[in-house]
Amino acid sequence: MGLIVQKYGGTSVGSTERIAQVAERIAGYLAKGHQVAAVVSAMSGETNRLVAMGQELGGEYPSRREMDVLMASGEQVTIALLSTALLRRGISAKSFLADQIAFRTDAAHGRARIEHIDTQKLQTELANGVVPVVAGFQGVNEHGEITTLGRGGSDTSAVALAAALEADECEICTDVEGVYTTDPRIVEGARRLQQITFEEMLELASLGSKVLHPRSVEFAGRYRVPVRVMSTFAEGPGTLITLENDNMEQAIVSGIAHSTEDAKITVSGVPDIPGIASKILGPVGGKNIEVDMIVQNTGVDGMTDFTFTVKRQDFQPTLSLLDDVAKDIGAREVTGDNTIAKVSIVGVGMRSHAGVATKVFDRLASENINIQMISTSEIKISVVIAERYVELAVRALHDVFELDAQPD
Amino acid sequence: MGLIVQKYGGTSVGSTERIAQVAERIAGYLAKGHQVAAVVSAMSGETNRLVAMGQELGGEYPSRREMDVLMASGEQVTIALLSTALLRRGISAKSFLADQIAFRTDAAHGRARIEHIDTQKLQTELANGVVPVVAGFQGVNEHGEITTLGRGGSDTSAVALAAALEADECEICTDVEGVYTTDPRIVEGARRLQQITFEEMLELASLGSKVLHPRSVEFAGRYRVPVRVMSTFAEGPGTLITLENDNMEQAIVSGIAHSTEDAKITVSGVPDIPGIASKILGPVGGKNIEVDMIVQNTGVDGMTDFTFTVKRQDFQPTLSLLDDVAKDIGAREVTGDNTIAKVSIVGVGMRSHAGVATKVFDRLASENINIQMISTSEIKISVVIAERYVELAVRALHDVFELDAQPD
Repeated sequence: MGLIVQKYGGTSVGSTERIAQVAERIAGYLAKGHQVAAVVSAMSGETNRLVAMGQELGGEYPSRREMDVLMASGEQVTIALLSTALLRRGISAKSFLADQIAFRTDAAHGRARIEHIDTQKLQTELANGVVPVVAGFQGVNEHGEITTLGRGGSDTSAVALAAALEADECEICTDVEGVYTTDPRIVEGARRLQQITFEEMLELASLGSKVLHPRSVEFAGRYRVPVRVMSTFAEGPGTLITLENDNMEQAIVSGIAHSTEDAKITVSGVPDIPGIASKILGPVGGKNIEVDMIVQNTGVDGMTDFTFTVKRQDFQPTLSLLDDVAKDIGAREVTGDNTIAKVSIVGVGMRSHAGVATKVFDRLASENINIQMISTSEIKISVVIAERYVELAVRALHDVFELDAQPD
Repeated sequence: MGLIVQKYGGTSVGSTERIAQVAERIAGYLAKGHQVAAVVSAMSGETNRLVAMGQELGGEYPSRREMDVLMASGEQVTIALLSTALLRRGISAKSFLADQIAFRTDAAHGRARIEHIDTQKLQTELANGVVPVVAGFQGVNEHGEITTLGRGGSDTSAVALAAALEADECEICTDVEGVYTTDPRIVEGARRLQQITFEEMLELASLGSKVLHPRSVEFAGRYRVPVRVMSTFAEGPGTLITLENDNMEQAIVSGIAHSTEDAKITVSGVPDIPGIASKILGPVGGKNIEVDMIVQNTGVDGMTDFTFTVKRQDFQPTLSLLDDVAKDIGAREVTGDNTIAKVSIVGVGMRSHAGVATKVFDRLASENINIQMISTSEIKISVVIAERYVELAVRALHDVFELDAQPD
C-alpha cells in the first residue's frame, strides 16, 4: 500500500476503449488499497495532428507560445475522458490542468523546465480519496501562460509529480513490458530486466532505447524517485529503475542499445594545431546541429584526421557547411557516410571489470565486423560500424555477455 | 475607426484554410484603423466529436465538470491556430483562455452564467496594438474550474466581451449574410434586413431563426451592445441589431419565422376548475420538458379543452406521462399531433398598428390553411398550422406584408 503516480502514454489512451481499460487498471490498484494519481499524454496521433495544423498556418517557425496553447489541448481532452471513465466506475476522480495545480515552469515555450509544483490541492484531493488526473507535458509560467516540456514531457511530468508528492513509486505505463537487455525485434533471447540503475537507464535511453526519455530519467535520479516501466495492458512487474541495483548479483553488462539514426563525417588532412577542433565544430554548433561522438587521432607529420557523428537529417547540411570550413583551415578533404550504426554496451558493472572492451572488440572481429569509431564512458562502450551489420553485432554481443541468462 | 469585437463561429474556423481567411479579414479591419478583439468557437464538428467520446465513457449523464474540461479544449485549438495565422501575417496577436482573462462565471457546469470579465489585461494588449484572440463558450468559476456557457455560448461570450470592453460594435461573423425577412430557402424574395431591434431579434431567434442564440440577444439588449450579424466570407454590411430601429421608416412587420420542431398535445374534456392547468403542466415541467404555446378555451358545460406544444422529441414521453394525469383529473382523452408547424410574424411596428392579426388570418383563410392555435405578444403573432402548409403560409404572409420590398 502506498501512493503511486501512474503515467499513461499516448498509445495507452489512444481510444475510448483503451481509456476505459486504463480506468479499470486504476480501479485494481485502488482495490488493493493504494492511492493513485494519474498523469496522461494526449491520445496517440493527436499531437501530430495539432502540430500539422499549426505549421500549416504558422509556417516553419510558428509562434512557440501559440503552439504550446495548441498542443496542450491534447492532454486536456484525455484528462477529462479518463476522469469521466473513472467516475462512471464510481471512483472519485478529478481532472487538473497545469495551471490548476500551479505546475510552474520557466518561460521557455516548447522546452520549458519545471520549477515548482503546488501539491497542497492534490494532497487534499488524495486524502479525500480522489484520484487526481493530471495533464502531462504542460506547465504554466509565472504570467499564467501555457508552456510545454518538449519531447518526453509527460514522462518528466509524472516523475516530477511523484517527486513533489513524495510518492512511493512512479509507474511509466506504456506499450512495452519493461526495459529489455536489447531490442527484442533483433534478438529473440532479449530479456526483460527486473531492475536497472538510473545511470544505466540514462545511457540506454540516450542511446536509442525509446522506452523512457533521458530527461525524465535524469529527473528521477536527481530526486531519487523509484520509476517502474511496465505495460498498461499486459500483466507483469516491468522494470524497476533505482539508485542502486541491489536486487541481484550485479551483472557486468545490463543492456545493449543500438541506433541507425546517425551519420559520420571525416575531415582529413587537417593541420594538427591547437584550436583546430573548435574551428571545425564551432560552425556546426552555430547552426544548432548536435554532434554526438567525436574522435581525433594522434597526428602524423603534423596532419591529423577528425571524425564526428551527427543526426542523419543533419548530414547534408553539415557536409555543405564544412566545404567552406575545410578551405579555411587548409584541410585535404571532407568525406562522410550516412549508412552507419552505433552499438553501445551499457552496465555499471563495467566500472570494476576490466576486459569488457576486449571482449567486445574480439567478438566483433570474429564476426568480421570492422569498427570505425570507438567512444567510451565509465559505464558504456559505443562502437560505430556499417549499418548492414547492426543486427549481427547486437546478437553477437548479446550472446558474448550471456544477457539471455536469468540472473541468479 | 473604433473597437470591434468579432465572433467567428465553428464553420468560419472549420479548417486551416478558413482560419487563414479569417486572419485576412481581421487584417483588413486593422488596415482601416480599427482595433479588433476576436472570439472564436471550436472548429465545426469538433464539439460533437468530443461530446461523443465523453458520452461513450461517461454514459448518458457524464460528469458536467469533466465535460466542460473536455469541450473547452475545442476553443483552445482555434485560439492558438487563429493567433498563429495572424502572427504569420505580421499582426501582433495573442490567444487567451477564459482563466487568463478571468472570464468569471457561476459554477453551473454546462450552462454557466457570466458574472464578470477582467478587461485590464485585454485593454493593455489592445493599447499595445495586439489582437486578443479569446476562447468563446468557456468561462472559469471562482475555484479556477473550467465552465461552459451552453448552446450559443460563443455568441454570448462575444457580446459579453464587447459590453465589458465598451466596444463600438460586436460582429457575429457567420455563414449567412445577415438576418432575413424569412427563410430564403422558402421564399425567393426574402430580403436581408439592414436593421432590426433587439426585441424583434429575440422573438425571431427564439422562434427558429437560427442566426443568433436568444441568450446573446438578451445580453446585447441588456447591455446595449450594437450587434451586427454578417458573413465571414462574403462582402456586405449584414444586419445591425440595435435598441431602436432609427435607420428607416419603421416597418410594421420585420420578419417571419417558422419552426417544424414542435408537437401539439390536447387534453380534452377537462373539468373547468381552478388549478387544472398546473395539474396538467406540473408533471410535464417536473420531467424537464419545455412547454411553448399554451391555449385553454373558455369552458362549456363545466368542461374545457387544454392544448399546448412541446419539442417534437418530447412528444411521446409527454403523451405517456399524461395518460396517468388524465385519469387523475377525470379528463376525457389525451390526443396529439407531431406534424404541426409554427409560423410567427414579428415586428415592433405591430404595437401601434391594429389589423395585423386580421391580415394574417384573412390571408391564411384565403389559402385554405386552417389555424389550429394562436398565440400573441406585443410584437409577435404565432399560429400553429399543419406542417404540410408551412412553406405556403410563409410565402403568403411574406407577400401580404410586402417584405420583399426595400424600405424607403
